[in-house]
Amino acid sequence: MSVTAARGFVASGVEAGIRRSSVDLALVRSLPPAVGAAVWTTNRVQAAPVTVSRRHLESTQPQAVVVNSGVANAATGKRGIADAVRTAAVAARVLHLRPEQIVVLSTGVIGVPLPLEKVLSGVRAAASSLRPEGGAAAAEAILTTDRGSKQSSVAFDGFTVGGMAKGAGMIHPRLATMLAIITTDFPLQADEADAFLRPAVDATFNRISVDGECSTNDAVVFLANGASKAQRDIGRDDAFAGALQQVCADLARQIVEDGEGATVLLEIRVVGAASDDEAVAVARRIATSPLVKTAAFGHDPNWGRVLAAAGSAPWNGGFALLDPERLSVAFDGTAVFERGAPTGLVPRLAGPATTIDLDLGLGKGTAAYLASDLTYDYVRLNAEYTT
Amino acid sequence: MSVTAARGFVASGVEAGIRRSSVDLALVRSLPPAVGAAVWTTNRVQAAPVTVSRRHLESTQPQAVVVNSGVANAATGKRGIADAVRTAAVAARVLHLRPEQIVVLSTGVIGVPLPLEKVLSGVRAAASSLRPEGGAAAAEAILTTDRGSKQSSVAFDGFTVGGMAKGAGMIHPRLATMLAIITTDFPLQADEADAFLRPAVDATFNRISVDGECSTNDAVVFLANGASKAQRDIGRDDAFAGALQQVCADLARQIVEDGEGATVLLEIRVVGAASDDEAVAVARRIATSPLVKTAAFGHDPNWGRVLAAAGSAPWNGGFALLDPERLSVAFDGTAVFERGAPTGLVPRLAGPATTIDLDLGLGKGTAAYLASDLTYDYVRLNAEYTT
Repeated sequence: MSVTAARGFVASGVEAGIRRSSVDLALVRSLPPAVGAAVWTTNRVQAAPVTVSRRHLESTQPQAVVVNSGVANAATGKRGIADAVRTAAVAARVLHLRPEQIVVLSTGVIGVPLPLEKVLSGVRAAASSLRPEGGAAAAEAILTTDRGSKQSSVAFDGFTVGGMAKGAGMIHPRLATMLAIITTDFPLQADEADAFLRPAVDATFNRISVDGECSTNDAVVFLANGASKAQRDIGRDDAFAGALQQVCADLARQIVEDGEGATVLLEIRVVGAASDDEAVAVARRIATSPLVKTAAFGHDPNWGRVLAAAGSAPWNGGFALLDPERLSVAFDGTAVFERGAPTGLVPRLAGPATTIDLDLGLGKGTAAYLASDLTYDYVRLNAEYTT
Repeated sequence: MSVTAARGFVASGVEAGIRRSSVDLALVRSLPPAVGAAVWTTNRVQAAPVTVSRRHLESTQPQAVVVNSGVANAATGKRGIADAVRTAAVAARVLHLRPEQIVVLSTGVIGVPLPLEKVLSGVRAAASSLRPEGGAAAAEAILTTDRGSKQSSVAFDGFTVGGMAKGAGMIHPRLATMLAIITTDFPLQADEADAFLRPAVDATFNRISVDGECSTNDAVVFLANGASKAQRDIGRDDAFAGALQQVCADLARQIVEDGEGATVLLEIRVVGAASDDEAVAVARRIATSPLVKTAAFGHDPNWGRVLAAAGSAPWNGGFALLDPERLSVAFDGTAVFERGAPTGLVPRLAGPATTIDLDLGLGKGTAAYLASDLTYDYVRLNAEYTT
């Protein structure tokens, strides 16, 4: 049910003392040789562990992942890089691997140096407690102020995909956020891991928004060790791609549901756009609109705000193509605006999830996005702490 | 001190009965023949009065502006267009002008038809009460749920620029927002009005953000009637351009200060960007960041969030150029991050305004942006009304 659901993976979560009285250092390792890939934050400001781990992945295949929570090791200059390098070196020594085979990740407060001795002691302790049942402890150790751990797995046709994530609980000042680690025992060649991971991430982790922010530490790391010995063919490759996307989608949804202050899950579905890219732009603009998100909090089927947001979706230096006369909008399946005119219907939105469907009536482009609402608690969580 | 500060302009504000018990219809007119220009919302969803008034300005010079508040006449289909055309026709008749010389503007709820008979009665009443002292009443009549009217004027070197605006008080569901009307007695040729207006708007109204939303009704309308008889030369043209920008800047600042739920005015100044466009992208990204804006509400000098926002400023299909090692950030003049490293200084932010300075250390690009903070009241105002 977690990052160790697939065969051949072990994990642990220990108290390194970085955060007060909680497990705060996780280790995940493949026992058989694995291949891997990662998708990193595109922010121009990248945390030191991101810089170091990218370099490692360029030179070889990753075999283990070390994650500390509490301190993001971002905006920490040369010292931050040295600390991340040292963490990988110590992990490599105790795991009998090379430093380049270690991915290091951090999540927590920006601009504060890593408490290096605590991290290194934690790495040693975590290495000695690695086990196949360690997934739950690892999933706990990567959290910062998330309300609960986020785990998922799919077993299918002889192979398993599992994973864990942490989400948008940026309630402390300067917190750098989203991490996910996905593992599988499906057999992949070295050059295939990236090709399977990217579309799965693009359709899931890249289609969620809590507050439209892009952190300095975001990372999705993927390890595949082939321990299932599953035979490869086109049908099973498709099944694996589907299982991988399902685990990513499940973790992504858990992140949005546990978004800061979230009370309502918004599912935004766009069809009929001139292109898929424009559908994504429109869905993302609605998913990040403060007016749409406050309306969701108020259970208000406010299609006027949806229209205004859809009409101003940044795309290609201008706005995505949209013609109000061809546009239709529905809330939870009830049409509120059809091809340029209000229907007069007012759907009742009471539940913890709301679906907004848009048909742009222009072409075949489609996209879906998940978003949380914008609430008092979001403001409280992000305003009340002062440095 | 208002839209009638310049010679030759008259205005009025009357109760047309569109909103309950308040003036809700404004008329502004130039007595001598005027030239004019306008800048419109770029939203793909445009209100009917925007569509009709754009067409009018393409065919001739505007002489008068009719504004109703309460109903935005947006997303109202063919009926909305017919209502806007009819409003201009009736205004033209009572003012002895041609319909094409009338600019019609609406602000208020989206998706509701204009109460046309009330609007037309209001136009007739407003026409009969036009006077040079009518600016304050007109400024009152264009408000929806703004906390107060927004007026400005500059008298300089023989000429005057005046104006009024309404802002981001989108507290009703589906409200379409920002309007500004600027008048001057400076003499301009027909083809000059636009050339003076655009850079002034670009540096002011296009550099503010309450919540990053772009409404279906946004408009800045500019009338110049030459009644000052001021002689033209390069020096005086520069003075006029400066005065015009000053009035626009003053009104823009009033809009942000009166932003929904606003308690803190954020002034974001970026220097050292690779280009002016990238400086604008970085400043805008910070100005629209929910995390920066909630931190401002909490008086938290949270430079980590500023860094994360600056590093993810959409530009040219990617992010604006930024190198953390060259970046410096200051809050209210106190350096918190210098060329890649935290300074350890923690400025105390207590006042109603905070300045965030960024030096990207890359080139000569600069930009400034004004933003309001993100507060409980913003959420309350936009969530509590349900349709």
